[in-house]
Amino acid sequence: MSVTETLAAYVVDSTLDAIPRDVQREATRALVNYLGCALGGSIEPALDVATRTLEPFSGERAACVLGRAERFDALNAALLNGIGSHVHEYDDTLPKNYIHPSVPVGSALFAYASANPVSGRDFVHAFILGFEVESRIGNAVYPAHYQAGWHITSTTGVFGAAAAVGKLLGLTTKQMVWAFGLAATQSAGIREMFGSMAKSFQPGRAAQNGYTAALFGRADFTAGERALEGPRGFAAVTAAEYDLDKVTARLGVDFELRDNAYKPYACGLVVHPAIDGCSQLFREHHPAAEDIAAVRVRVAPLVLDLCNKKDLRRALESKYSIYHAAAIGLVRGKGGLQEFTDDAIRDPKLAHVRSVTTAVADPSIGEDQVHIEVTLRDGRKLVKFVEQSLGNVHRPLSDEQLSEKFVDQSVLALPRAQVDDVLDQCWRIGELADVGALARATMPRGARAPSSRAGN
Amino acid sequence: MSVTETLAAYVVDSTLDAIPRDVQREATRALVNYLGCALGGSIEPALDVATRTLEPFSGERAACVLGRAERFDALNAALLNGIGSHVHEYDDTLPKNYIHPSVPVGSALFAYASANPVSGRDFVHAFILGFEVESRIGNAVYPAHYQAGWHITSTTGVFGAAAAVGKLLGLTTKQMVWAFGLAATQSAGIREMFGSMAKSFQPGRAAQNGYTAALFGRADFTAGERALEGPRGFAAVTAAEYDLDKVTARLGVDFELRDNAYKPYACGLVVHPAIDGCSQLFREHHPAAEDIAAVRVRVAPLVLDLCNKKDLRRALESKYSIYHAAAIGLVRGKGGLQEFTDDAIRDPKLAHVRSVTTAVADPSIGEDQVHIEVTLRDGRKLVKFVEQSLGNVHRPLSDEQLSEKFVDQSVLALPRAQVDDVLDQCWRIGELADVGALARATMPRGARAPSSRAGN
Repeated sequence: MSVTETLAAYVVDSTLDAIPRDVQREATRALVNYLGCALGGSIEPALDVATRTLEPFSGERAACVLGRAERFDALNAALLNGIGSHVHEYDDTLPKNYIHPSVPVGSALFAYASANPVSGRDFVHAFILGFEVESRIGNAVYPAHYQAGWHITSTTGVFGAAAAVGKLLGLTTKQMVWAFGLAATQSAGIREMFGSMAKSFQPGRAAQNGYTAALFGRADFTAGERALEGPRGFAAVTAAEYDLDKVTARLGVDFELRDNAYKPYACGLVVHPAIDGCSQLFREHHPAAEDIAAVRVRVAPLVLDLCNKKDLRRALESKYSIYHAAAIGLVRGKGGLQEFTDDAIRDPKLAHVRSVTTAVADPSIGEDQVHIEVTLRDGRKLVKFVEQSLGNVHRPLSDEQLSEKFVDQSVLALPRAQVDDVLDQCWRIGELADVGALARATMPRGARAPSSRAGN
Repeated sequence: MSVTETLAAYVVDSTLDAIPRDVQREATRALVNYLGCALGGSIEPALDVATRTLEPFSGERAACVLGRAERFDALNAALLNGIGSHVHEYDDTLPKNYIHPSVPVGSALFAYASANPVSGRDFVHAFILGFEVESRIGNAVYPAHYQAGWHITSTTGVFGAAAAVGKLLGLTTKQMVWAFGLAATQSAGIREMFGSMAKSFQPGRAAQNGYTAALFGRADFTAGERALEGPRGFAAVTAAEYDLDKVTARLGVDFELRDNAYKPYACGLVVHPAIDGCSQLFREHHPAAEDIAAVRVRVAPLVLDLCNKKDLRRALESKYSIYHAAAIGLVRGKGGLQEFTDDAIRDPKLAHVRSVTTAVADPSIGEDQVHIEVTLRDGRKLVKFVEQSLGNVHRPLSDEQLSEKFVDQSVLALPRAQVDDVLDQCWRIGELADVGALARATMPRGARAPSSRAGN
């Protein structure tokens, strides 16, 4: 069997009972993290604009958008869930390939579940499969694909969403092969969009496109059957080098969820070591911002490739600035949502530290690491080397830390009592009779959907 | 100004009066050809399936799908128009880059015009601009982009649709830059899908995605502002070599519409010389199929790269077979829609000629050319060299031939009287008060939209 067919058959034939308990547990943790991100991002301007713009284009309003009052058809809801859950850059990451895996899959699945009855068991199962599919495809094309400029979260996420929704729709293997073909031919998203609203649009579109691929596959809409391995297929077209054995090796034995990491900071992953190390210096020395004369960070080369913005004009840009990362760590000792706002980028203390910070790419520094040297006005030097950044698989967030993160984000959108109820349900998601009830429990109570129309 | 901004400003500032009359006339010819393709394809199974599948996901049913009874929101209509107008592989082509330019732009524009009032002048103007934008972007990345495996019609078509709809929506230059960014980040479609329904899905999705990009741009949904030239932008990510000067050189002076070609045969362009030459041999010698002992065609190498399928299982595959091309020319002397059906691929005479045909890639043969050598059972040899294939810019279809092609396609979907009315309106499209009336005139009269639902 071809790679594409092998993967399709695995998804179609998989049973939840054959999936180890620790993987199921990690799926629940990933979904708690996902849902908190979706609720925290549900009030963002990017999502407001997208919601208004798509209003006249919604079909049957069977689905809900997580954390919002509006109802949409499930395909539009998948897109909107994706924007909301990614816009804060606070979602999970597979450090081995920089995919944020839960957004495309979770966004499609919650949209589906809010419009169709789905048990918690089936939902978690589909989530695990979608997560596995996109992650393995990512492993096969990383790093060449990512280095070329693709936003790997959306380019592979479309396959994950297709697999997850396709599993719930009961596709045959042949239909799943077609769904993967339709996913491949909608795979898109470039890193040039980082730092703008379009960044979060990408994994949302991946969720929606993957969902569409599954619907079309079920309807026997034919597609090329070598989506992954064909000479003009996904891997060959989008990666100078790739290894498709990584898609199929030890399928059903190894699970990518075991390597998933949850962000402690609301920004691009590669600057996390700098925030972590600078926050440690903050806690140990409490330097006053005005006493900081120079900051020198040595980072993995990828950090400067992605996050070399010093002059910040938009809040979103601050999530991709190694200079801002150092500043918030040293001045505030944290990197929550409030550290990446318009107010934050105008904060004179942060602006001062950004301005005295220099960053050097050092190939001897790993992507989980950073070396920080702070020079104070009195000549003292503070030095910190971070070996393993907080939140990586060796220093994972605990369940309690995930719950705290969930609450911190969700209270931006919902009253505390509702937040606690949703969180409680989400930790029990695998036992729920209908995940749609959980999705609907995130809607603001008593609120009404705006009736404004944006025109065709 | 950057390349992206220069192109955006050109679209925003353009006036129809500054566009030469011959270009406006060629736009009308392209639209006649486009509309005939859309009507001919409107009854295809691919479009039936897509229409049923998307039924529950349509928003306000303000738009119509060309040639069909169902009404959809304009975004879904753009996708469906794209499937219908491309599925027969009968649409126009820019030989210099193999883009089929009218499908993404025309599909978005007719969807828009069926839902919003648009004068013929504005419609034609927007069409010319969209055509120009996608074609120039294609010129800049061709051939590396196409050779990598991208379906250049959809990958560049999304920019054309964004430009055309964005012009009608009155975007500012900044908004058009964002729309181009959103187009770039939705640009997708791979050649691995050729020969399946997914092929026609691609330019449809490009139409829909470009339309979406324009809507989001108008709503100030921000995107990266170096969509084309950025280090992680469209050109760098999708083409090993490119020349962005081709996007901006002589903008407003040279027009790509002047190089547009209309297919005389309902299949992939690169096999047209073979059909042309074999049809000439048919007319000159009338060989009986059973007397044909061997056929040897020497073709440009790209032909075998794209069209090397001999064992045909699906009708769509026959549109990409150099062997089938030779057979229909020699046996039937033509390449209309009836030459690419399931019946045609099972025709024993055609199967025989396919089986005795060999094709050789010869770098000395141009892509408009073919050398054909037919050996008859009695030992006689028939030889033909085609220097310029029918339908290319040096042997263009006349207005009358375009009208005949329009009628041949459209009568599959509509009564002859209605076909004649639509054709008459389409030749006068630039003078129409509201192009929406033309779009609605293509709906089957008296037919009712099916009410079947495909579920969420």
